[in-house]
Amino acid sequence: MAAPRRIELVLDSVKRLLRIGATANLLNLLQKQHPADLAQVFSDLVDKDREATFSLLADRNGRLAMEAVSELGPEAGAALLATRPAEEIAKLAQEIPSDDAAALIDHLPEDLSAAVLDLMRPKESGVVENLLEYDEQTAGRIMNPHVFALSEDMTVGEAITELQSNRDVEMVFYLYVVDERNHLVGVVSLRRLLLVSPETPLKRIMTADLTSARADMDQEEVARIVASYNLLAIPVVDEENKLVGVITVDDVIDVIKDEATEDIYRLAGVSGDERAFTPAGESLRKRLPWLGVNLATAFMAASVVALFEGTISQITALAVFMPIVAGMGGNAATQTLTVIVRGIALGELSWGNSRKALIKEAMVGIGNGVVLGLVAAVVAYATRGDAVLGLILGAAMIINMFVAATAGTLVPLGLRAANIDPALASSVFITTLTDVFGFFSFLGLATVFMKYLVRAG
Amino acid sequence: MAAPRRIELVLDSVKRLLRIGATANLLNLLQKQHPADLAQVFSDLVDKDREATFSLLADRNGRLAMEAVSELGPEAGAALLATRPAEEIAKLAQEIPSDDAAALIDHLPEDLSAAVLDLMRPKESGVVENLLEYDEQTAGRIMNPHVFALSEDMTVGEAITELQSNRDVEMVFYLYVVDERNHLVGVVSLRRLLLVSPETPLKRIMTADLTSARADMDQEEVARIVASYNLLAIPVVDEENKLVGVITVDDVIDVIKDEATEDIYRLAGVSGDERAFTPAGESLRKRLPWLGVNLATAFMAASVVALFEGTISQITALAVFMPIVAGMGGNAATQTLTVIVRGIALGELSWGNSRKALIKEAMVGIGNGVVLGLVAAVVAYATRGDAVLGLILGAAMIINMFVAATAGTLVPLGLRAANIDPALASSVFITTLTDVFGFFSFLGLATVFMKYLVRAG
Repeated sequence: MAAPRRIELVLDSVKRLLRIGATANLLNLLQKQHPADLAQVFSDLVDKDREATFSLLADRNGRLAMEAVSELGPEAGAALLATRPAEEIAKLAQEIPSDDAAALIDHLPEDLSAAVLDLMRPKESGVVENLLEYDEQTAGRIMNPHVFALSEDMTVGEAITELQSNRDVEMVFYLYVVDERNHLVGVVSLRRLLLVSPETPLKRIMTADLTSARADMDQEEVARIVASYNLLAIPVVDEENKLVGVITVDDVIDVIKDEATEDIYRLAGVSGDERAFTPAGESLRKRLPWLGVNLATAFMAASVVALFEGTISQITALAVFMPIVAGMGGNAATQTLTVIVRGIALGELSWGNSRKALIKEAMVGIGNGVVLGLVAAVVAYATRGDAVLGLILGAAMIINMFVAATAGTLVPLGLRAANIDPALASSVFITTLTDVFGFFSFLGLATVFMKYLVRAG
Repeated sequence: MAAPRRIELVLDSVKRLLRIGATANLLNLLQKQHPADLAQVFSDLVDKDREATFSLLADRNGRLAMEAVSELGPEAGAALLATRPAEEIAKLAQEIPSDDAAALIDHLPEDLSAAVLDLMRPKESGVVENLLEYDEQTAGRIMNPHVFALSEDMTVGEAITELQSNRDVEMVFYLYVVDERNHLVGVVSLRRLLLVSPETPLKRIMTADLTSARADMDQEEVARIVASYNLLAIPVVDEENKLVGVITVDDVIDVIKDEATEDIYRLAGVSGDERAFTPAGESLRKRLPWLGVNLATAFMAASVVALFEGTISQITALAVFMPIVAGMGGNAATQTLTVIVRGIALGELSWGNSRKALIKEAMVGIGNGVVLGLVAAVVAYATRGDAVLGLILGAAMIINMFVAATAGTLVPLGLRAANIDPALASSVFITTLTDVFGFFSFLGLATVFMKYLVRAG
């Protein structure tokens, strides 16, 4: 078992062997590793060492090298591949399943990926090109087109013989059954084959009522089905119900991780395909638009403050406390928003049962507002000796936390109902709202009750 | 296949049949559903209807009812179970695998769970109690203790016979091989059994080098191993390498989802076990401490503003623009923080390769600062006619976005190195820092260059 410590030992040895140029020993060590561990080693090495190690391994054991590259993920994997000439990439790409090859080739620079496809064997590149014709993030894009299928006219004995002569098909646990025109008609589990006599017709023991995914189905929906029915694999069919591929649970796990990353990122205004080591220029281009929108909304909130400059010039303490009202509203809104957005993503929450969620969040908002408003009021009074200022601060906080809670619930649910990703747009809306309401309620109350407030100076 | 639309149709029928009291038809409909679909129906019904439907189904088909409850997840599932008397819960709990029963019982109110354990058959409750003795979030807690194991002295033929007489063992794909004292010594895939003659000794075809998890291993580590090696199941052993259970990939998917939820929540200051329909009182108690810490840090930032009240009283425009500097720093820091925290969670980032990440983020921070600072400077100059104010605003934004980027990288990596969850503590630290630095740089620069600024009034 590759505990983190073991990988570190391997990594240290790799670095040492690279340094002293002990190529034979290095190759020996690399070939003993699991592709997932090699991927970890690759990602921990500096660029130069990673490329040297990969090129060494690729010459000797192309399949293992490519499996490791595949485990790196399409972005990092393609970046490493792109350091090699197109001829070599084309040769290496044929070592791994077409779906993995397609994902890598799709992430190569455009001219390089075209060159690679040209250089691959026509049959292989045809399969990859077919996969790339499906839209991104659909079942067709992530499926393995080499699916092991049996004819419905076979007996169990024939099926076992067929299985024995196809030893290199990956991860077979369900055997899909098709009719003479390749329509998916049933499924038999491997285990079932062991429990009946060889002459039994497959038709008799297959389950005809099976769950499949259309090739154009969103990968998130595929993942949801596989996860909720605890499947190990799901067959993929075209619009005529012809079997075109299979998606295994390990691919589904990758989808679940990616979708979770996307949700986390969107809440923070980061694009779903950015990673820790995305080049700085690309990250900058991806993050700037969202920050630009935020800057515009920040000026909007600032214009609310500007309305009350007259009040602030007389009571500067207002400038001291106003960020607290806005900031605490933003924090409370982020909590609500996160719970609601995640509830939608996990399928627990919809527009249908939103009333219950709204009532709950409103109560939590008022509760938080009362407790924190009281504390803030006492602190303001203690530090400033102005009871009215404390009361206004407390009241503004209660109002703003109520606004935060209701908006934090309604905005994502409303976006969802309008078919917009709730995580994408919510946080900008919500924090703008809490800033505007925070400044307005606090400075507005202060303006109304100005004559009771202690003047500065 | 249960598309969302189909579930809605089922849900509508359930509501209608409940309303007209057509119990027989309702039971008929419910019994045709997959447990995962039933769970969805349960969660979409109002409390009263959910309890009525569950109790109806539990009387007729306890296993299906409990499988659906299990699919609801431990919190919501236990809440639904808790509406039934202890005797009934004890009977129902015996219908599902012990690991699922343990998860539900663990989430019942304390006195109820004790009563249920007392009322279960001694053998069953013993297994559940054993599971509950493992720490939360460990392999032991989520494993299924009913693992199908074969003796190393068997032949392939005997193994197949053994398998045939254990038809109800769930999800068998790997057959674990143990010695006479139950030590785990190897694994054979189901498929392998089909490919060799019945008299072959298991010992000859088993793989002795297999990946296992210690019962006290963190569930996140288990999930990482299963996901990176693309396993369908992992055997769980005790400290003497004796086989004590198995964790299947469907449990791993639940762990991955839960851990992603925890990460998303922690970044927003929400506790990992809160859900959209956690009762308001409980949510309030869970969210208040984090908001309390935020309030304290907000007052800290406010005290920085208070240092400059003299400046603000002369130039009130500063109060208008200062939230922009602090807020944009906070937004940029959140982006960096999210990418870094997720990079750590996905295993792409460690203290070892942090230098590269730091340089990248610093460059992105300065880049964002220059672009946005320039825009802000122009807008401030255009609306206020004060070029120096614009320059100060732009400069403060560049400084604060640089601080945001470096702190957003170093704080989570530092916390990780100190074995503190980086997601948990980072956001409070970071936004306090960007508030303090934002106010300080902007108001500080304004104070230094005050004589060049246009006075208010």
